[in-house]
Amino acid sequence: MEGLKLEQRHGKARVRVGRVWREANGRHLFVEWNVSISLLSDCLAAYTRADNSDIVATDTMKNTVYVKAKECKQPISVEDFAIVLGKHFTSFYPQVSSAIINIVEKPWERIYIDGQPHRHGFKLGSEKHTTEVIVKKSGSLQVISGIEGLAVLKTTQSGFEGFIRDKYTILPETRERMLATEISASWRYPFENLASVPAKQSYFMEKYTDVKKVLLDTFFGPTKEGVYSPSVQSTLYYMAKAVLARVSDVSSVKLKMPNIHFLPVNLSSKDNPVIVKFEDDVFLPTDEPHGSIEATLSRIQSKI
Amino acid sequence: MEGLKLEQRHGKARVRVGRVWREANGRHLFVEWNVSISLLSDCLAAYTRADNSDIVATDTMKNTVYVKAKECKQPISVEDFAIVLGKHFTSFYPQVSSAIINIVEKPWERIYIDGQPHRHGFKLGSEKHTTEVIVKKSGSLQVISGIEGLAVLKTTQSGFEGFIRDKYTILPETRERMLATEISASWRYPFENLASVPAKQSYFMEKYTDVKKVLLDTFFGPTKEGVYSPSVQSTLYYMAKAVLARVSDVSSVKLKMPNIHFLPVNLSSKDNPVIVKFEDDVFLPTDEPHGSIEATLSRIQSKI
Amino acid sequence: MEGLKLEQRHGKARVRVGRVWREANGRHLFVEWNVSISLLSDCLAAYTRADNSDIVATDTMKNTVYVKAKECKQPISVEDFAIVLGKHFTSFYPQVSSAIINIVEKPWERIYIDGQPHRHGFKLGSEKHTTEVIVKKSGSLQVISGIEGLAVLKTTQSGFEGFIRDKYTILPETRERMLATEISASWRYPFENLASVPAKQSYFMEKYTDVKKVLLDTFFGPTKEGVYSPSVQSTLYYMAKAVLARVSDVSSVKLKMPNIHFLPVNLSSKDNPVIVKFEDDVFLPTDEPHGSIEATLSRIQSKI
Amino acid sequence: MEGLKLEQRHGKARVRVGRVWREANGRHLFVEWNVSISLLSDCLAAYTRADNSDIVATDTMKNTVYVKAKECKQPISVEDFAIVLGKHFTSFYPQVSSAIINIVEKPWERIYIDGQPHRHGFKLGSEKHTTEVIVKKSGSLQVISGIEGLAVLKTTQSGFEGFIRDKYTILPETRERMLATEISASWRYPFENLASVPAKQSYFMEKYTDVKKVLLDTFFGPTKEGVYSPSVQSTLYYMAKAVLARVSDVSSVKLKMPNIHFLPVNLSSKDNPVIVKFEDDVFLPTDEPHGSIEATLSRIQSKI
Repeated sequence: MEGLKLEQRHGKARVRVGRVWREANGRHLFVEWNVSISLLSDCLAAYTRADNSDIVATDTMKNTVYVKAKECKQPISVEDFAIVLGKHFTSFYPQVSSAIINIVEKPWERIYIDGQPHRHGFKLGSEKHTTEVIVKKSGSLQVISGIEGLAVLKTTQSGFEGFIRDKYTILPETRERMLATEISASWRYPFENLASVPAKQSYFMEKYTDVKKVLLDTFFGPTKEGVYSPSVQSTLYYMAKAVLARVSDVSSVKLKMPNIHFLPVNLSSKDNPVIVKFEDDVFLPTDEPHGSIEATLSRIQSKI
Repeated sequence: MEGLKLEQRHGKARVRVGRVWREANGRHLFVEWNVSISLLSDCLAAYTRADNSDIVATDTMKNTVYVKAKECKQPISVEDFAIVLGKHFTSFYPQVSSAIINIVEKPWERIYIDGQPHRHGFKLGSEKHTTEVIVKKSGSLQVISGIEGLAVLKTTQSGFEGFIRDKYTILPETRERMLATEISASWRYPFENLASVPAKQSYFMEKYTDVKKVLLDTFFGPTKEGVYSPSVQSTLYYMAKAVLARVSDVSSVKLKMPNIHFLPVNLSSKDNPVIVKFEDDVFLPTDEPHGSIEATLSRIQSKI
Repeated sequence: MEGLKLEQRHGKARVRVGRVWREANGRHLFVEWNVSISLLSDCLAAYTRADNSDIVATDTMKNTVYVKAKECKQPISVEDFAIVLGKHFTSFYPQVSSAIINIVEKPWERIYIDGQPHRHGFKLGSEKHTTEVIVKKSGSLQVISGIEGLAVLKTTQSGFEGFIRDKYTILPETRERMLATEISASWRYPFENLASVPAKQSYFMEKYTDVKKVLLDTFFGPTKEGVYSPSVQSTLYYMAKAVLARVSDVSSVKLKMPNIHFLPVNLSSKDNPVIVKFEDDVFLPTDEPHGSIEATLSRIQSKI
Repeated sequence: MEGLKLEQRHGKARVRVGRVWREANGRHLFVEWNVSISLLSDCLAAYTRADNSDIVATDTMKNTVYVKAKECKQPISVEDFAIVLGKHFTSFYPQVSSAIINIVEKPWERIYIDGQPHRHGFKLGSEKHTTEVIVKKSGSLQVISGIEGLAVLKTTQSGFEGFIRDKYTILPETRERMLATEISASWRYPFENLASVPAKQSYFMEKYTDVKKVLLDTFFGPTKEGVYSPSVQSTLYYMAKAVLARVSDVSSVKLKMPNIHFLPVNLSSKDNPVIVKFEDDVFLPTDEPHGSIEATLSRIQSKI
């Protein structure tokens, strides 16, 4: 390999696993996960010399997911399960220096019948809980949690004014528009090694619930008057700031908030100057194009 | 066209419209619809002689959706809006003999902040309310309502035994398995002409809510013990029967319930006969292949 | 079931199978199919009395697909394979009265390296060959072949004029526009029972190739001047007519040709009346909404 | 913002544009692009103080795409068009320090009728040409080209042996298997500023064609005997190495090659030990899980 440099990883993606835990009282707990594993490992000979002796087969990685799911005798969060997997791959195989584990949890929610929780019935909800965990052989760790697909919309209390106007600008200024987005959030925890992860079983689930609540509260504002959004940028910033202020242990938060446009409908023709006149009532929702606004807000001290 | 027969329709699909209604008290109501229109009309000359004089342009159909949405000064169900459109196209254009209107409503739900409903905030839910309405120039009518994407799962109280065993059969019999499906339901109302449709504004929304509740109640059974499912067929049948029994005005109901398999995980190798042994705990969820079970149950008297 | 009527079917969908045939000369043939089976059968007791004794398990149907693929010692078309399956299910099981088999073939194409065909290398192409075959226990048969996803576009020789103008009409008339569509075609063969299907191994593949060629030839016209399209309706009609005229054995053809709009781009603002002026050069392609034009053209004598 | 750090970008995604060029001889050239723009700019006040005076509206970015497409009087590659846009945003707006432009070209290919190229007819192909260009206000530049969705498969000349065997390993060793993947390739050019980009109009198109050919040639090997693949890793490495060896100006190449499994079909039951026995003939293709193998190979001197 004179003059060349190789960076590589290999793994298994889209390993699906369902796990049921049956409590003594007859109540079942259930999760469905989609697990992706990526290993950084010392296996150059496989690339350059057809020597697979340092390769962990991706089929073996898949099997390991089922073995570890089986070994979880208690309910476990996606974050903790990802840590279990990362720990395994980096400690079991001398060749593996780092493991990157991504998990998406399918949003199965316990069903309520006439207001009562069902013991073994579940219904699919909407937004998804995700995680990315990186474990190194040294025990060093990075844990990121996330929400995907949290689609929200408010029908007023949004505007956009005072932006740059030039010869390509057509968009009028407004203090009254629809604001719609599909929030992708991810936030990082300050734990830097395996030993510092909280032992509490429900820790990451509680954080997830807390962050989601703060994001929604801040996006919508009070139930009566709401809160005015002068731009997606501003709303995003206050959401991120509120997460850092109100959820302890979060060291940084990244938000992607596409501006999903609901265009005002005005229709006219030469013969009929007013077919439809927009009065904040009829909209054309569009998927493309969309604005793309994203930012990461970090505590300075916690940034490595 | 000697010796040939032409059957045709044309229309506009995927017309998206958002509609906001603002109540005097500051509360907003909001819907987002995806409308598809198909017209049966007398316009053969367009096909055979390049004469478009009997063609309603599909762009005009699209405009009409916005005009009619604008004219709805009160909140309206997808079924009633589809009827408004169908009525318009069949009465306004001499050439149009029938209009087939399909609408899918995006599941925006009012958000609750600390238990209180927000006046103008909405969040996307999961399953979708749909409709298909057919209006003829004579005023004759067919109204179908539907639910799409109602994904449900129960972790026990399901089995499958006593089926045909032959030389291609591998599936073992069981009284304990996961049962998962994504219900598509559609049901037909008995109204046969425009005059007989109930005037009550909330009529179709209430029916939708009622049918969904009956489907879920019957699928899951009581919250403690549930209800045993001997097959998807049997569960489907009892769900359909309960809809007809408990929701008045429904003349027939069609259910599609794919059997989405959660395979038991058993892993072994020559060297290791028990890597993972299934004990109703670890599953491999799959999307393909899946069983496909569908049936329509009708009241005999209401069938035309 | 007093007062109720049940219509039902069950089957297995999305059964994926790949099949390799190795010729003596070292050349490999390869197909990948996605098979869906639906059986009409006498199994009411499964629905109403939890008695599965007349049920063909969908898992067994899946196994059968692999058994029959194995038994095909020679390359076989999707149509012929669907007939094999339909014949099996209706003859092997006394309970089964009809089998509906749908297959989609993945468009794997032999790769050419420096102009030479590779013996065992394949690359994925675009549009897909499909079939739907219905076999009844009596031996009566219906065979439909299809093309899905044949996306085509011409940059001129298209217009739309002389259509109905009313108070909702905005679309201007034009003799110069882009014409884009994604053709879905399906055509029916006249064979009415199993005995009348041609024995020739390549029969259905040749028909597929012929129909595709006729559709493309007619849509585009001569390579220099093309052919003027006065409407999607007219173009669709001439395509269907050409299929019936030029491909023997086709008794009817159905075309779905969504009008996928490429909107002229004109941009202006109060300050800048001409930001972009359309001169048949810059377009905004859209997926939604789209026109939906579909028609079936049949030989009168062949229509049942 | 005491104690907090903000990193942000905003832009417009999924801006679709079609562009036709009409040659004097009647031949038309046509491209369809999906453009995404992301700007790094000095606009913190929009986030923290609701002051939008430094914000380029994403609507303005969209308009600019159409203006620049209009200004292209000659056919232009996606790479060159991305450079045009990046140059514009970083030079026109004092606030903008960097522009990141991503473009995906829809694979419209000129249609051939009876072997002759059509003047204005196009058909959709399969894999896509992509680019990512980053332009800084200083004029510094990074150009990446890519291929997405190049799905390939070979029915023999692939194996996997000698990998790590441990208590979680089930996969047997083999010298005969199917090898299928969907190649995503991206490669970087050595140009470090706007001035050094080749002026030749067809430069990037030729490179794209060259890289694709090298990737396919290396994956498949000679048309008769092919080339043995001892692992996806090894095949990937030789493909990347061949790109660097045979295509000048490419400074690094990144390949993602998921191992898309075609599982051998063996079916048996207690009563029937051989329902289907695998003989390199019948496969079950799967999308999930899949192996994920990716690597970047760089010339050492060209790496910054």
